[in-house]
Amino acid sequence: MQKFGVDDLRGVIAVTPTPALPGAAALTARDTVDLDESDRMIRALVADGVDGIITNGTLGEMATLTPAEWRAFAACVADAVSDTAPDLPLFVGATAPNTRDTVDRIRFLRDLGVRGVILGRPMWSELGADTLLAFYRDVAGLFPDMAIVLYDNPEAFKGPIPSAAYAELSQVPQIIGAKYIAITPKFGADMAAVGDRLRLLPLESDWLAAHTLYPETALGCWSSSALCGPEPVLALRDAIRAGDVGAARHLTRRIEWTYEPFLARTNFREFSKYNITLEKIRFDEAGYVTAGPARPPYHVVPGAYADGARENGRRWRTLVGEVRGRNS
Amino acid sequence: MQKFGVDDLRGVIAVTPTPALPGAAALTARDTVDLDESDRMIRALVADGVDGIITNGTLGEMATLTPAEWRAFAACVADAVSDTAPDLPLFVGATAPNTRDTVDRIRFLRDLGVRGVILGRPMWSELGADTLLAFYRDVAGLFPDMAIVLYDNPEAFKGPIPSAAYAELSQVPQIIGAKYIAITPKFGADMAAVGDRLRLLPLESDWLAAHTLYPETALGCWSSSALCGPEPVLALRDAIRAGDVGAARHLTRRIEWTYEPFLARTNFREFSKYNITLEKIRFDEAGYVTAGPARPPYHVVPGAYADGARENGRRWRTLVGEVRGRNS
Amino acid sequence: MQKFGVDDLRGVIAVTPTPALPGAAALTARDTVDLDESDRMIRALVADGVDGIITNGTLGEMATLTPAEWRAFAACVADAVSDTAPDLPLFVGATAPNTRDTVDRIRFLRDLGVRGVILGRPMWSELGADTLLAFYRDVAGLFPDMAIVLYDNPEAFKGPIPSAAYAELSQVPQIIGAKYIAITPKFGADMAAVGDRLRLLPLESDWLAAHTLYPETALGCWSSSALCGPEPVLALRDAIRAGDVGAARHLTRRIEWTYEPFLARTNFREFSKYNITLEKIRFDEAGYVTAGPARPPYHVVPGAYADGARENGRRWRTLVGEVRGRNS
Amino acid sequence: MQKFGVDDLRGVIAVTPTPALPGAAALTARDTVDLDESDRMIRALVADGVDGIITNGTLGEMATLTPAEWRAFAACVADAVSDTAPDLPLFVGATAPNTRDTVDRIRFLRDLGVRGVILGRPMWSELGADTLLAFYRDVAGLFPDMAIVLYDNPEAFKGPIPSAAYAELSQVPQIIGAKYIAITPKFGADMAAVGDRLRLLPLESDWLAAHTLYPETALGCWSSSALCGPEPVLALRDAIRAGDVGAARHLTRRIEWTYEPFLARTNFREFSKYNITLEKIRFDEAGYVTAGPARPPYHVVPGAYADGARENGRRWRTLVGEVRGRNS
Repeated sequence: MQKFGVDDLRGVIAVTPTPALPGAAALTARDTVDLDESDRMIRALVADGVDGIITNGTLGEMATLTPAEWRAFAACVADAVSDTAPDLPLFVGATAPNTRDTVDRIRFLRDLGVRGVILGRPMWSELGADTLLAFYRDVAGLFPDMAIVLYDNPEAFKGPIPSAAYAELSQVPQIIGAKYIAITPKFGADMAAVGDRLRLLPLESDWLAAHTLYPETALGCWSSSALCGPEPVLALRDAIRAGDVGAARHLTRRIEWTYEPFLARTNFREFSKYNITLEKIRFDEAGYVTAGPARPPYHVVPGAYADGARENGRRWRTLVGEVRGRNS
Repeated sequence: MQKFGVDDLRGVIAVTPTPALPGAAALTARDTVDLDESDRMIRALVADGVDGIITNGTLGEMATLTPAEWRAFAACVADAVSDTAPDLPLFVGATAPNTRDTVDRIRFLRDLGVRGVILGRPMWSELGADTLLAFYRDVAGLFPDMAIVLYDNPEAFKGPIPSAAYAELSQVPQIIGAKYIAITPKFGADMAAVGDRLRLLPLESDWLAAHTLYPETALGCWSSSALCGPEPVLALRDAIRAGDVGAARHLTRRIEWTYEPFLARTNFREFSKYNITLEKIRFDEAGYVTAGPARPPYHVVPGAYADGARENGRRWRTLVGEVRGRNS
Repeated sequence: MQKFGVDDLRGVIAVTPTPALPGAAALTARDTVDLDESDRMIRALVADGVDGIITNGTLGEMATLTPAEWRAFAACVADAVSDTAPDLPLFVGATAPNTRDTVDRIRFLRDLGVRGVILGRPMWSELGADTLLAFYRDVAGLFPDMAIVLYDNPEAFKGPIPSAAYAELSQVPQIIGAKYIAITPKFGADMAAVGDRLRLLPLESDWLAAHTLYPETALGCWSSSALCGPEPVLALRDAIRAGDVGAARHLTRRIEWTYEPFLARTNFREFSKYNITLEKIRFDEAGYVTAGPARPPYHVVPGAYADGARENGRRWRTLVGEVRGRNS
Repeated sequence: MQKFGVDDLRGVIAVTPTPALPGAAALTARDTVDLDESDRMIRALVADGVDGIITNGTLGEMATLTPAEWRAFAACVADAVSDTAPDLPLFVGATAPNTRDTVDRIRFLRDLGVRGVILGRPMWSELGADTLLAFYRDVAGLFPDMAIVLYDNPEAFKGPIPSAAYAELSQVPQIIGAKYIAITPKFGADMAAVGDRLRLLPLESDWLAAHTLYPETALGCWSSSALCGPEPVLALRDAIRAGDVGAARHLTRRIEWTYEPFLARTNFREFSKYNITLEKIRFDEAGYVTAGPARPPYHVVPGAYADGARENGRRWRTLVGEVRGRNS
């Protein structure tokens, strides 16, 4: 029934933007998804060997696509995956301002044949711990065959998923993983809470540390940098799997080097205000995908932050070159 | 062109819920708006003499209505006002996760003949000060004949509207007011920033203090308690207008007394998690409007908070009796 | 036994700096208190008619005086008051990193004949609500004849005094008042909690609003601006007492005007970092007291903030002129 | 000249309490340091092989010792180290409410022959980044032969040490290390900022992760758990040095297991309110040192937190048994 389980969540899960046509930042623009580039992006990721795909989180513009655009993009992604790698774990975002709109979105995805969803919380009002549990359980209860990855972003959703909630949610069979924000003192408690029932996916640059402590369960990572070109993250995956700590460390520190000029590493709250544009800028600079303009209102960004994003994209391109040179 | 200006924003602006039919808390429920009760509610407010109406903020379930429900409620409210008091300042909520969806909502309202909107910010990502300004200016620019009331709720929208932004926004002719959250040290700075160009509307229990300091401009208030029965707030208005400080003080302190058991006064962040249900509970208890169940996910509420809301509703009913007794 | 009770806490309670000799900002300086100026300052305040004096809060450099300096200043102040107005309510600061050091400080004050103390909390670790209650009760229990004014500064002491704690503390006879930070939604709850047993003293510019709502109990204010020259605050007191709302409003808004360039009004957290120097700068500029340099580490201040403080001092001087002109 | 440099900061740096005599929680108690137990504690740590000692941070009751008690304890510790391991890196706390009191404390330590100090910031008012830099530089400038370890505790000192400040402070020769709070996204940026000039000491349970990424510089850790019995942490050190990742991981996860019932891991802000008592409770339960009662005001603690601390102490004792069994 349920196509994807916790064991299907391994390796590099790429987190994609929603490519936009020129002019997409205009208030009057509609149907702004660049469907050709979207299709090409998915096929490239599949061809290059990522182990899963997440769409429509924050940088994937879940909040700024019109409903029609979201549907068009979801259909495009579903087609591209079904055409090239029908068993690849694909998790399309369905976060909405309330439960019923989320239910309608998931129903649409199911009708497309999509069997995985990534799901943040309604965020107009912060959810109390009881409300948070009820929300995820209610949705899972309606879709017994849909695999759910929790989207745990404390800035977007006004607070972390508490460790006690992780323990409860890990008992729900459909909830198989979480896009986990960052290694903090809470990470160990959350790993203990979920055991082997729910995959906590750290950021790629946290993966080696997580794997060092939890080699049995820290088996995958998420990466939006993979959309700057996946080779460095795939090389990191191979090094971790091979037990080559030296190579994994080298790659991790080179990835950290690309992040130095990027606001995300130094001030996550400030970054969260400009996240979408900054990610799209670095993608465009790196050249693996043409992400295009950010949609309003998140198309405004201070110049210094934009410069840092561009430098991050350039450094990632350099790193791709290093990895290719080493592989050849 | 623009029907409502800052001078139309005076007196008591009632903030309404969106009445729900039985069963509205179910995930599978659709078309849950109790349109008969909605119509009755608006006509009652008009008949009782409120000076303006705001719908679809937080407690008005902007976030939890489906798009179809929001349209049905807006049409019902617009009809009831047009039928009874076509010149009454009416501000329907149009907050959405992004600018373009907000634009579509306002366009729908304009086609209904509605000429006022209350507008919070997209809140998935916090808006930087620059983004906030661009957002409101962009929307105002598209709708030259629509009056905009800012919805300034720092919990919902992840931060206050800075005083400097108030100064800028007060220069936009369409932006005529703000539903202001509470008197804090920032209030004086914001009053200075907006001058007589933009009406800052405090909560009814803050109105006397605001009016004492700013008798020329603090000419109105917002009140969701008016939906427990408007007489006490209307009596407060009349006392303030008559310069009867003793009566205004007495009413203010009796209103404060009704709030004592209500979470809103003692812990706004915690209240914000359960706001919608708690407001609906007290409305139902007071009996002026049948608000019905809250829609998911915000239908979960701790029992002690619910008890406090009920007691608040009972106290308000008592206060209505006191005011009627005095008036007769 | 207890010299001062809640009824002695009325009118304008001036909050003083600890005047410093030239060179006091040096790490090697010791015995930096300008005792002549301290004596003159106290005698001037008494002669000009303030209703009480508070020393050694944040701007009074409780944290940055050496123990010997604090003792010297306390003795000087005690002498000057005893010599000129022995029944004037005087509250010397005795906040320390722990309870026992506070006890030793209060014992020293009592031996000087001082019968009032203003007391913040130990702040290395935030006090839980239970610890906070135990702290104040324990100290009061040791000093049955000492009147205590709570120092409620949420930035300095890592959190507000909760309303429930105010209710409990108001039952302790020695605890007669609180230097209250600012009018927020919590103010009404705190007024209800303390009744007429404990005087909440708002800032002078909040006094009119507080008095409008609570004319029986909002009978006094604190003012550090009084150290820029007390006339405007004394005139405000007289207007409030005379029921002259127009004059009180005018004075309040002129005081607000002096604060416009002062960081304190617009960003209290940022202000708290530079508080001490900024207050001393405006005092020196206004010219009523020579406050002298701030002691390390709080002698560092960004230039723009300093400019704002100077402008605040100049405006206050202008306001003193206006009040004198009106009185003459 | 300067006895200790960055290269002397390696291995396990034990963080000690200040043992208290029975009755030390009384407000009237003075001279409460258990000097015999203090002497025994230091000698035991030296005999058992720790690589350095830190005293008088938060749990070491820097804030709650009277000045005389602090001096007595410092002299006792200095004697015990000088008698047993005169070259052992010893860092005595000298944090005070202001710079000049800190200077006096360090001068006292220097006269005792102590050549290392651990130094937090004055915390009545939060230090701006400029003030923070000036504070540490000013102190270092007065004591050219004293090695300084920064005490980086964002709860106690109202904010983290920013990465840019770490970069600047790492250029001061006397500043050789930092007691670092926890691995967060900022850790990589801080490691890059300080290079090999300043040793960032993570908590023992974070050490393996830090060492995996930074094997050249993550050469030591701090541990207050070592005062429950140092064997597990020393075994972890030996495993890390030997490159035995399996053993290091096993020990790290067993240490995490001891922390499960301890508030510190799950809610650091709440823990910070009760830190001192909770640490002393677990030390007393584990039995390696008799820490005795906490001094006021921090002697108040909720029962459930105390139970968790006791269980932590019991688990650590179990872990000591496991390590001894393995070693024998």
